[in-house]
Amino acid sequence: MSFNTIGIIGKFSDPTLGITIETLGNFLLSKGARVLLEQGGSETLTHSPNLETADIATLGTECDLVIIVGGDGTLLHAARELSDYDIPLVGINLGRLGFLVDISPTKMTDELSNILDGHYYEDQRFLLKSAIIRDQKIIHEGDALNDVVLHKWNTVRMIEFETYVDGQLVNSQRSDGLIISTPTGSTAYALSTGGPIMHPSLNAVVMVPVCPHTLSNRPLVICGDSFIELLVKDGLEDQVHITLDGQLNFGLQQDDRIQIRKKDKPIRLLHPEKHDHFQILRAKLHWG
Amino acid sequence: MSFNTIGIIGKFSDPTLGITIETLGNFLLSKGARVLLEQGGSETLTHSPNLETADIATLGTECDLVIIVGGDGTLLHAARELSDYDIPLVGINLGRLGFLVDISPTKMTDELSNILDGHYYEDQRFLLKSAIIRDQKIIHEGDALNDVVLHKWNTVRMIEFETYVDGQLVNSQRSDGLIISTPTGSTAYALSTGGPIMHPSLNAVVMVPVCPHTLSNRPLVICGDSFIELLVKDGLEDQVHITLDGQLNFGLQQDDRIQIRKKDKPIRLLHPEKHDHFQILRAKLHWG
Amino acid sequence: MSFNTIGIIGKFSDPTLGITIETLGNFLLSKGARVLLEQGGSETLTHSPNLETADIATLGTECDLVIIVGGDGTLLHAARELSDYDIPLVGINLGRLGFLVDISPTKMTDELSNILDGHYYEDQRFLLKSAIIRDQKIIHEGDALNDVVLHKWNTVRMIEFETYVDGQLVNSQRSDGLIISTPTGSTAYALSTGGPIMHPSLNAVVMVPVCPHTLSNRPLVICGDSFIELLVKDGLEDQVHITLDGQLNFGLQQDDRIQIRKKDKPIRLLHPEKHDHFQILRAKLHWG
Amino acid sequence: MSFNTIGIIGKFSDPTLGITIETLGNFLLSKGARVLLEQGGSETLTHSPNLETADIATLGTECDLVIIVGGDGTLLHAARELSDYDIPLVGINLGRLGFLVDISPTKMTDELSNILDGHYYEDQRFLLKSAIIRDQKIIHEGDALNDVVLHKWNTVRMIEFETYVDGQLVNSQRSDGLIISTPTGSTAYALSTGGPIMHPSLNAVVMVPVCPHTLSNRPLVICGDSFIELLVKDGLEDQVHITLDGQLNFGLQQDDRIQIRKKDKPIRLLHPEKHDHFQILRAKLHWG
Repeated sequence: MSFNTIGIIGKFSDPTLGITIETLGNFLLSKGARVLLEQGGSETLTHSPNLETADIATLGTECDLVIIVGGDGTLLHAARELSDYDIPLVGINLGRLGFLVDISPTKMTDELSNILDGHYYEDQRFLLKSAIIRDQKIIHEGDALNDVVLHKWNTVRMIEFETYVDGQLVNSQRSDGLIISTPTGSTAYALSTGGPIMHPSLNAVVMVPVCPHTLSNRPLVICGDSFIELLVKDGLEDQVHITLDGQLNFGLQQDDRIQIRKKDKPIRLLHPEKHDHFQILRAKLHWG
Repeated sequence: MSFNTIGIIGKFSDPTLGITIETLGNFLLSKGARVLLEQGGSETLTHSPNLETADIATLGTECDLVIIVGGDGTLLHAARELSDYDIPLVGINLGRLGFLVDISPTKMTDELSNILDGHYYEDQRFLLKSAIIRDQKIIHEGDALNDVVLHKWNTVRMIEFETYVDGQLVNSQRSDGLIISTPTGSTAYALSTGGPIMHPSLNAVVMVPVCPHTLSNRPLVICGDSFIELLVKDGLEDQVHITLDGQLNFGLQQDDRIQIRKKDKPIRLLHPEKHDHFQILRAKLHWG
Repeated sequence: MSFNTIGIIGKFSDPTLGITIETLGNFLLSKGARVLLEQGGSETLTHSPNLETADIATLGTECDLVIIVGGDGTLLHAARELSDYDIPLVGINLGRLGFLVDISPTKMTDELSNILDGHYYEDQRFLLKSAIIRDQKIIHEGDALNDVVLHKWNTVRMIEFETYVDGQLVNSQRSDGLIISTPTGSTAYALSTGGPIMHPSLNAVVMVPVCPHTLSNRPLVICGDSFIELLVKDGLEDQVHITLDGQLNFGLQQDDRIQIRKKDKPIRLLHPEKHDHFQILRAKLHWG
Repeated sequence: MSFNTIGIIGKFSDPTLGITIETLGNFLLSKGARVLLEQGGSETLTHSPNLETADIATLGTECDLVIIVGGDGTLLHAARELSDYDIPLVGINLGRLGFLVDISPTKMTDELSNILDGHYYEDQRFLLKSAIIRDQKIIHEGDALNDVVLHKWNTVRMIEFETYVDGQLVNSQRSDGLIISTPTGSTAYALSTGGPIMHPSLNAVVMVPVCPHTLSNRPLVICGDSFIELLVKDGLEDQVHITLDGQLNFGLQQDDRIQIRKKDKPIRLLHPEKHDHFQILRAKLHWG
C-alpha cells in the first residue's frame, strides 16, 4: 500500500495545535503526499496552516490514510465518521499518551516516516452499531467504538430494563445504567465502573452494570458476535437515554428496544512496528 | 414515657394499605390512644379508615409517637419532615423487610403492644444537613437521613469538583458524582456504588465516588462530626445536581459550594427489644 | 450417537448418595445400557448399589457417556481425569444446583431419557494445561477446567512475579496471587476476587490479581489462545504455590516459570435441550 | 515537654542507612540530647555510627522520643514494641514517602528542629489487641497497629468462621480470610482487598472479607470500641492462621476463638505542624 493522499483531523476545541498540524502538513508534503485538512478542525485554529481543506466525507472518499491529532476522544469521533470508508488511521497525541493516540508529537516525523514506508503494525478494532426500535420501527441508528451506554437521565431514580443476548433473557435489572463496551472501550468508562480490561484483539463485548441494585450483578463478558437487546421497562418520557462513545446522546421511552451488534467492518489503526498494548496499559495505569 | 397521641403515616403511592392502616388504627384506639392519620397518605387510599386526619406539621406538634407504614422510602420522607420535633418513629413494612421498616404487618399488633408498654430498643440515627452557597449566600437548604449525592445531570460528561473536609482539600475529582452517606444510607445507594456497610451506631460518614476517572479514588470514611464542602469546578448550567435521600433534587452551577454537616438532633427509631441489625443485614443481603 | 456403555462417578466424600446412584444405575440398565460405576466413589458409599465397578481409566476407554453425581467439584475432578478420552459428560447434582451439575435428582430419569434419545445440547468447555519449568526442564504438568492459581503459601508476605502474554510483558506485580481462569471458572474463585463473569462459549481467559498492591491492577481478559507465562521473582522455598481447580497443588521456587496454554481438546458437557446458562446465573446469583 | 533522651530505631534489613543514622545521631547530639541507637538495627549496618546502643526495652524506659528510620513496616514494628511506654514516635523514610514515616531524609534536620522545639502535630493512633482462646484458656496474645488478619494457611481451600460483634452474630462466612483493620491499616492490606480508606482520627474498625464466597459479604465498618470475636469453624490443624500487621503469625485450629479489642493506650505519632493526611493520600494514591 502506498499513501498518496493523506487527511489530517485535529481536536476541534484546542486552538493551540496549529503548529503541530503545520509541522505535520509540511512533513507530509515533503514526502510527496497530497494533504487534506479537515475543515471543521481547521476553522478554530489560532495559527492556520497553509493546507488544502475538505470536509470529512471528502477525506473519506479521497484519502489513503488519515492522521488524527488530539486526544482519544478526537480519534473516537473521527473513527465513527470514517468507519464506512476502510481508511487506516494514525493517532498523534498532544503530549499526553492516549490509548488510541499513541504517537507523541516529538517523535511524530520519525514514526510517520516508518509508517509511510510500510513499516507499521495494523490493529483492527471493531465498532458496535446500535438501533433503537419504537413501535416496530427503527427511529435512530449510530455507531460506537468505545461503548453504548444506557443510563438514567434527568432523574434521581434508578431505571429498569431487561437485557437479552441472542434472544435469551440475561436479567431484569434496576440500576443507574448499563455499559456495553468493546475491548477498545474497556479502558474508558467501563473501567471506572468496575469492568475488566480487555485486550484489543479480543472478540468480546463486556456489559457492565452502573451502580446496580443487586450486588451480584457483575460485569458479564460475552462473544463479540452476540446480538444484544435492551428493553426499557420503566421510565417516564426523557428519563432514559442512550449514549454512544460519551459523545452522541438520544432520549428513550418505555418499551423502546435497543439492538446492538458488532459492525461488519472494523477500523484499522496503524501503530509503529514496536507497538505494545501492555506498555501503554502500564504507562496509563501507573503499573509498577 | 407514655404514648397518648399516635400518628400514622402511610406510603402515598400504595392504595392497598387501607386495610393495614384500619387494623392498626383500631388497635391503637383499643389501647386508649388518640390516633391521627396523616392527610396526604389518607387521600389516596381505596379503603378509607375511619380515623381523624391531620397534616404532618400537626402530627409533629401533637403526637408522642408516629408509626410509618410502607417502605424505607416512606420512613425516610417522614423522618426528614419530623426531624425537628423529637418524636420517636416506628416502621411497619408491607410484607417486605426494610432496613428501617423492620416490623412485619403480621406481627404488628404484638410488637406494638410491647412497644406501647415501654419495651423497645431505641436506635438514634443522625441526619445530614446541607446548604448550597452561591455568591456568598445560602440559596438552598435540606436534610438527608440516607445520603447527599452530588451528580451529573442531563449530560453525558463527567463532572469535576473539589472536596474539602474541615477546610482541608481531600482531592479534585472527575467522576459521575459523589455520595456522602450516613451509616443509615450505607446500605442504600452507597452500597451499590462500592461503599462499605457501616453500623448504624457509628459516628461516621462515608464519601463514595461514583465511577471516578482515577481508579484509586476509593470510598473514604471520616468522622461524623466533619464539616464537608464540595466545590463545583466545571459544569454548564443545570449539568450538576444535588439530591437528598434520592427524593429531593436541586440544580447547581459552577463555583457553587455545598456545605454538609451532621444535624444536631438525631431521629429516634423504636424497634422491638430483640432488634438485631446484623440479622436484618443477613436477611436483606442473603448472607449464608 | 448411541450410548451403549455408561459410566457413573460419584462424589467421594458423600456417603449418602448410594440411593441416587442405585436409582440411576437401575434406570440405565433398564434402558439396555451397560453400566460401570467408578471404583473410588463406590467404596465409600453406605448403601452399595449392585453395579459393575471399574477404575476411571477403564471408564475412559470403555464408556460412551459418563454421568457425574455430586457437586461442581466432583465434575471438575472427573473432567480433568477424562479429558483425554473425548467422552461426553452429564452432571447430576445432589439437590443443590451447580454451574456444571445442572440436572436435579428429581428430574434425573426424565432428563436422561431425552439425552439418551439424542435430545441434548452439547456445550464444549476448554481446559488450561499448565507446565512448570525449572532450570529449563518441565518438572510438573497438569490441567484445569476452572482455573490455574499462582498464590502465596505458608507466608504472610505478598509474592512478586512477572506476567507475560505471547512473549510480551504485561506487568511485574506484588499481590497475594493471580487467578488465570477459563469462562467455566469465571463464576468460581475468580468471581469472589472481583473478576467478571464470562459466557462459557467465549474463547477467552481472564487473569484476576488477588489483593494486588497496585489498585489499578485490574482483571484482564485476553484471547483463549494466548500463551501465558508467569515468572516467580521472589519467594523463599515453598512460599509460592500453583493450584489447579482448587484441587491440585504444587510448590514453586524463585525463577520457576509457569506456562499456561489452552488444551486442544475441550470437554463435552451434555445438557437438556432447553439448557439456558443465563437461567443458571440468575438462580445461583439471586438476580432479580 | 522536652526531649532529653532520644532513641533511634532503623530498618533491620537495610544495610545502607548507616549514613542517615549517623547524620541524625550527630544532629541530635548537637542539640544536646542523649542518643540511644537500638541494638538490633545497629548490628546489620555496613557503616556503623558512633552511638551508644541499647535494647528496645531500654529505649522504652529511658527515652522521651523515639525516631524510626525506614519504611512503614519499621514503624509498625517499633510501635508495637513500644506501645506500653507512652513515648512519642517520629518516622523518617528512606526517600520513599510512607503513610507513617512521612519525613524525608533531606528535610530531616529542619523538621526535627521544629519538633524538638515543641512545634509539632500529635496524631494518636489506636492499636488492636488480640487474644486466642483455646479450651477456655488464652494461648496467645499480641497487638497490631494496622490489622489483625485471619486467613487460610497451607491449604487451597476456603476457611469457615463466624464473626461476632459485641456478642451478636454478624455472619458465618466462607472465604480466604478476614482483615480487621484500624484506620491506620486501612491504606495497607485492607485497601488491596477492597476496603474503604478511613481517616486516622476515626474511632472505627473495618472488617474486610478476603475473596468471600458470598458476593454481598462487603466491608463492614463498626465502632472502634467494639468487642470482636472470630470463631474458627472448620480447619484442619495449621490451615488457619492469624497474622498481626503482616509481621507476627500464629497457627489456629478448629473451635479456637480470637478476641479483638481496641488497646487502651494509643501510640503517639509526631508530625511536622503542617501535616496533612489528605496530602499523603493524594501523593501515595496518585490522586489528580
